[in-house]
Amino acid sequence: MSDQTYAITHVVGTSADGIDTAIRNGVAAASKSVRNLDWFEVDEIRGYLADGQVKHFQVTLKVGFRYEG
Amino acid sequence: MSDQTYAITHVVGTSADGIDTAIRNGVAAASKSVRNLDWFEVDEIRGYLADGQVKHFQVTLKVGFRYEG
Amino acid sequence: MSDQTYAITHVVGTSADGIDTAIRNGVAAASKSVRNLDWFEVDEIRGYLADGQVKHFQVTLKVGFRYEG
Amino acid sequence: MSDQTYAITHVVGTSADGIDTAIRNGVAAASKSVRNLDWFEVDEIRGYLADGQVKHFQVTLKVGFRYEG
Amino acid sequence: MSDQTYAITHVVGTSADGIDTAIRNGVAAASKSVRNLDWFEVDEIRGYLADGQVKHFQVTLKVGFRYEG
Amino acid sequence: MSDQTYAITHVVGTSADGIDTAIRNGVAAASKSVRNLDWFEVDEIRGYLADGQVKHFQVTLKVGFRYEG
Amino acid sequence: MSDQTYAITHVVGTSADGIDTAIRNGVAAASKSVRNLDWFEVDEIRGYLADGQVKHFQVTLKVGFRYEG
Amino acid sequence: MSDQTYAITHVVGTSADGIDTAIRNGVAAASKSVRNLDWFEVDEIRGYLADGQVKHFQVTLKVGFRYEG
Amino acid sequence: MSDQTYAITHVVGTSADGIDTAIRNGVAAASKSVRNLDWFEVDEIRGYLADGQVKHFQVTLKVGFRYEG
Amino acid sequence: MSDQTYAITHVVGTSADGIDTAIRNGVAAASKSVRNLDWFEVDEIRGYLADGQVKHFQVTLKVGFRYEG
Amino acid sequence: MSDQTYAITHVVGTSADGIDTAIRNGVAAASKSVRNLDWFEVDEIRGYLADGQVKHFQVTLKVGFRYEG
Amino acid sequence: MSDQTYAITHVVGTSADGIDTAIRNGVAAASKSVRNLDWFEVDEIRGYLADGQVKHFQVTLKVGFRYEG
Repeated sequence: MSDQTYAITHVVGTSADGIDTAIRNGVAAASKSVRNLDWFEVDEIRGYLADGQVKHFQVTLKVGFRYEG
Repeated sequence: MSDQTYAITHVVGTSADGIDTAIRNGVAAASKSVRNLDWFEVDEIRGYLADGQVKHFQVTLKVGFRYEG
Repeated sequence: MSDQTYAITHVVGTSADGIDTAIRNGVAAASKSVRNLDWFEVDEIRGYLADGQVKHFQVTLKVGFRYEG
Repeated sequence: MSDQTYAITHVVGTSADGIDTAIRNGVAAASKSVRNLDWFEVDEIRGYLADGQVKHFQVTLKVGFRYEG
Repeated sequence: MSDQTYAITHVVGTSADGIDTAIRNGVAAASKSVRNLDWFEVDEIRGYLADGQVKHFQVTLKVGFRYEG
Repeated sequence: MSDQTYAITHVVGTSADGIDTAIRNGVAAASKSVRNLDWFEVDEIRGYLADGQVKHFQVTLKVGFRYEG
Repeated sequence: MSDQTYAITHVVGTSADGIDTAIRNGVAAASKSVRNLDWFEVDEIRGYLADGQVKHFQVTLKVGFRYEG
Repeated sequence: MSDQTYAITHVVGTSADGIDTAIRNGVAAASKSVRNLDWFEVDEIRGYLADGQVKHFQVTLKVGFRYEG
Repeated sequence: MSDQTYAITHVVGTSADGIDTAIRNGVAAASKSVRNLDWFEVDEIRGYLADGQVKHFQVTLKVGFRYEG
Repeated sequence: MSDQTYAITHVVGTSADGIDTAIRNGVAAASKSVRNLDWFEVDEIRGYLADGQVKHFQVTLKVGFRYEG
Repeated sequence: MSDQTYAITHVVGTSADGIDTAIRNGVAAASKSVRNLDWFEVDEIRGYLADGQVKHFQVTLKVGFRYEG
Repeated sequence: MSDQTYAITHVVGTSADGIDTAIRNGVAAASKSVRNLDWFEVDEIRGYLADGQVKHFQVTLKVGFRYEG
């Protein structure tokens, strides 16, 4: 059995609802262009503010996926 | 058009409910003393425990705002 | 009055629901083997993906507790 | 002679010209609200892009100043 | 209105002139293969030396862009 | 009962005597302009040298305090 | 002569044999989809365990390559 | 001769006197539950404040010890 | 199906042979006191020198294991 | 062909003009005491302020050079 | 007036008494081989333990000095 | 008995064979110019690639040695 290799793509998911949804949105976007998603790591949690309130949570993710071939 | 400058204030928002609410509470407190809030970054997520359970989530934030003048 | 000492244990709480629940699950597991839990810090937020979706959030925690004796 | 104390304020200077000017702009803004500026440190260098080009350099600075009193 | 997602690509811009030009060169190269560039962050500033002088400044950048689709 | 919010100020305490006194001096200076000080964290320990000896220890502190209001 | 630009891709090489082979496997996988590989950096060394033993070493790499065009 | 293995435990020593005593108190507490202590590293220096003064220095330590067996 | 929880223990494996063997030795030592080992991460690679040569490689590891119960 | 070895020296270049010149000045100073300079990395960008303006940019550099012998 | 350049040397001062004395000892040792010492920064605080007690505090320092020439 | 002082030198060992040999080569080079080598720490693991393969592993080391005098 051969040794498996993975690659990592970097996305920023956003959501007005909260951090969990921002992560799910980022993963969903990554899944449109890459197959075999395997894990994620949170790199940074930020957000935009307006009128003294959180308008969007922004979560920077590393998303790992298995190489096919 | 002049170049815009920003300043950053540091707050710790807390909540018994969860991280998203702790962030919103920290931003709300910052908005009472500073105008033109523009973005936030999460620096640290901590919390107090009692009776083997989470009593408060505490999120340390950098909150950026535009200088007026 | 004597100076209090604390120790820190490291756990990874997981949840399909989100980060807050993963933290609560990690704290609950720590509370089964250690008494006098006092605080936690989030070290890392990761998760497993399958079918292009988040299956489990995994939050690595430092959990501090008071030494008895 | 008494021991001197300093405080640190955090600003983001911006410029379309480059990093040096962004730093000078951030320091100039800080000097309007705080006296006795003594040193700065660069925390982060970022910028906004549009039309495939750098529109603004943004430099986050810690600016140290001497306490009077 | 849907939540916007971003991706991040990593480039190293180089220049014999200085850091600002190295950043602009890196962004220009990224703009040839990716559309909708939105921001950059400097990760690392390095350079090659020869004859006791700087021959090239090398700036490692994270370049963020909006997902289309 | 409402959720408590904290803010963080950044000071550099100095002392010819040592690190502990530099911290106490930094906290004392912060207490002149801010009430309800709650905790501190050491960010950096530095110092000035002259004649091959330590002239001043300088300790950069984050000082947390409770918001009133 | 124009200034050279580089891009960085992120891969995870794995091997049951050890870290050096995991690195070589990650580089070999990257070389299948990208030409002109120029350097690598190790970001993280991890591994999976089973039966109290190392089953796979996993090395996360940044792999730099020259832009053609 | 076999290769020696070490383990690391994490404690927080506290003291109203200063950092050195907080470290010694943390080591003393660790020595009650673990034998063959070999080294320590300081991870974090913090403290609690009350009435505008340092009440307790808190030093987070990694404490290394030799495995017996 | 319940959410799985993990704990992390910290060990230093040593070897005169090299880094891979130091890791394997650290994992073997951890497996004597903890069951269900699942993954490791390398925190630090160091070593002792004598007579101008490497005598021991020392690798500090985080070792994760599943909680039973 | 033998494996090449490098050493790293640490210098702080300063300039009233800007960061690029501060780097060039630091490299020039290093080249007076060390031959075969090969690369540099920026560790820290700081500066002194007076009269509310930047007086000197200070850039801390790692400078790598080839061992002869 | 020419721009001043500095170099940085790295030493580990030790003391059975405490951190302040370990720093002073490290600076004193550096002053025997280098002139014009200007500042120090603490990089790491560690120590050796024996009989469940601190035997030596070890403080790793960056020591900056002005280039003559 | 006096308190021992150490200094740290920074070298980059290289090898086509692997990381362990690169470390040994770096230490061997350091031992030609400095006596009483005591320990090393790995700072960075990198390497050069050509033809889609690893040509040289490069390991940046801190090498500690005892001051004589």
